[in-house]
Amino acid sequence: MIVLFTDFGLEGPYIGQMQAVLHREAPRLPVVNLCADVPCHDPRAGAYLLAAYAGEFPEGSVFLCVVDPGVGGERAPVAVRADGRWYVGPDNGLFNMVAMRAGEVAWWDITWRPARLSASFHGRDLFAPVAARIARGDPPPGDPCAAAGRIDRGWPQDHPALIYIDHFGNAVSGVRAAAVPREATVRVRGHELRYARTFGEVAPGAPFWYENANGLLECAVNRGRADRVLGLSLGDALSW
Amino acid sequence: MIVLFTDFGLEGPYIGQMQAVLHREAPRLPVVNLCADVPCHDPRAGAYLLAAYAGEFPEGSVFLCVVDPGVGGERAPVAVRADGRWYVGPDNGLFNMVAMRAGEVAWWDITWRPARLSASFHGRDLFAPVAARIARGDPPPGDPCAAAGRIDRGWPQDHPALIYIDHFGNAVSGVRAAAVPREATVRVRGHELRYARTFGEVAPGAPFWYENANGLLECAVNRGRADRVLGLSLGDALSW
Amino acid sequence: MIVLFTDFGLEGPYIGQMQAVLHREAPRLPVVNLCADVPCHDPRAGAYLLAAYAGEFPEGSVFLCVVDPGVGGERAPVAVRADGRWYVGPDNGLFNMVAMRAGEVAWWDITWRPARLSASFHGRDLFAPVAARIARGDPPPGDPCAAAGRIDRGWPQDHPALIYIDHFGNAVSGVRAAAVPREATVRVRGHELRYARTFGEVAPGAPFWYENANGLLECAVNRGRADRVLGLSLGDALSW
Repeated sequence: MIVLFTDFGLEGPYIGQMQAVLHREAPRLPVVNLCADVPCHDPRAGAYLLAAYAGEFPEGSVFLCVVDPGVGGERAPVAVRADGRWYVGPDNGLFNMVAMRAGEVAWWDITWRPARLSASFHGRDLFAPVAARIARGDPPPGDPCAAAGRIDRGWPQDHPALIYIDHFGNAVSGVRAAAVPREATVRVRGHELRYARTFGEVAPGAPFWYENANGLLECAVNRGRADRVLGLSLGDALSW
Repeated sequence: MIVLFTDFGLEGPYIGQMQAVLHREAPRLPVVNLCADVPCHDPRAGAYLLAAYAGEFPEGSVFLCVVDPGVGGERAPVAVRADGRWYVGPDNGLFNMVAMRAGEVAWWDITWRPARLSASFHGRDLFAPVAARIARGDPPPGDPCAAAGRIDRGWPQDHPALIYIDHFGNAVSGVRAAAVPREATVRVRGHELRYARTFGEVAPGAPFWYENANGLLECAVNRGRADRVLGLSLGDALSW
Repeated sequence: MIVLFTDFGLEGPYIGQMQAVLHREAPRLPVVNLCADVPCHDPRAGAYLLAAYAGEFPEGSVFLCVVDPGVGGERAPVAVRADGRWYVGPDNGLFNMVAMRAGEVAWWDITWRPARLSASFHGRDLFAPVAARIARGDPPPGDPCAAAGRIDRGWPQDHPALIYIDHFGNAVSGVRAAAVPREATVRVRGHELRYARTFGEVAPGAPFWYENANGLLECAVNRGRADRVLGLSLGDALSW
């Protein structure tokens, strides 16, 4: 399975053009568009989201990940294997959390280049063909390198800030809920939120925090939009 | 074919995570994302939309439907077979219209539970695996029960209100257009609309009502947005 | 491969209903949703976008294209073969640029009609079944006609206006960047933009023009939204 994880948005031809390359280079392999609205140009938010989502996917899955403010510049293209799953994309921190949390990690510099490489769409021209090759069972077209030198161990295991606002207005943090005691009060933007297991346990309109379906601490309002009710934005800091 | 019908929005990882489960549990079966923007938390609007769309799909199609304000609470998971098509989701009214209008209906309480069931994402953890099983040809993992006791016959056959606003600003009602004489004037938000067969039959900027491609009465403006031109919102009442 | 190119938006049931028809009529053929947000009701903008995107796709690809303000009116349904790729949709100018630029063009009037043809959704009822047939290898269900009489050679080879604003706020023009000298200053809405090869070559916040990944001249701002920073809208004229 090839899994797309990008900040491209669903509008425009970008996701479709990558899918066309994948269908051509890896026929009959399913392609899942996991998330196209990772916060724009924010590989750090992407890194914590990706680490939370990846565990759902079977070993052998290939994640084609593009959150790449430096496209066309000097950041290197890489492939990473972490706990049996593959990640292909720019070496800008996006894979730091899956690598930090993995039991087993290997790292490759991608040295292959396509005959035509546009300045701005490496997702289609470079990363998609590489992801397709790996999904077909080929080795990464590049040089193995020491993972230890690539992982930035200075990042916190959990990121106490809002990293995603969803369609319902729920505000997802970079903190794994298992790291926070259930009796803790979570503070965000001057609000104090108590834990509830799920929406139906609080009154309509009431805010709370809970463990979302991907294991992250999420701020929510029963039958309301937490982003509007609480005035929350991407990047807001959390404490407890 | 497995058909997704949800209020999840296209943003975020939700649709992709369900698709990943379906590809894993029912490999090679096509998955169509029919609608991800059913009005949020509104199973009643969803029920009339679903009944209008379902007839397009071949017998044997499995609809995986999640419009579920009570997730994590007490509503039961169910599977319904109506006129040869399957519906899997929460028992909150979402299947009431397909069941009311069907010639032949059977109903199951889903008693199977996954090893891990998140509090908030039954679409991925419970309903998707059940839909995949049924799509593979297995019986619903649960107990048959009397459909008669589950169908709420108090609902009107047609719902005289706006239940969906589309990308073009057209306003879809819960009324089957065949129920309304072509010479009728439809009233909504103080406007009076006459029938036209299609957009090109009225002047640019003129409002009208017509039978949309799914058989529902729809309010529209030729080359304009009916929602803005007429000030229409979800829930607005219709009469004729 | 069947490729969807429409102004339907991703919301609502429209794309999903077309996909369901394609899966039924051409099982196992991949379907790629290339672009669902072509500017609404603007076949001319669509024509220049389509011509820029099509070359990426392999010969034999079938483009199912619907940007169709005249649906239900008098415009004819057509199939076009241009340089080995197929295009199915309304004869309203949408295929004019792929035809003008092609070395080899053939044109068919589609005379086949489905048993049930809704007034407003020819994409599902007429164009999708025709595209599926052609993708399966059947000839177009209609009459060959002279392409020369259908191509409007009065259109400019390049359209000096903004024809698409993307998710990042980048503003795409209908001008192939190869037609503009790199030293040219591009003028749009009173701004003067210099060329850069890519985003990283200018300072954060600085505007520039560049050749986008589909060969079109695009106005952008490094780490910013060109549409907002420069006040750009669809239809704005360009000169250089």
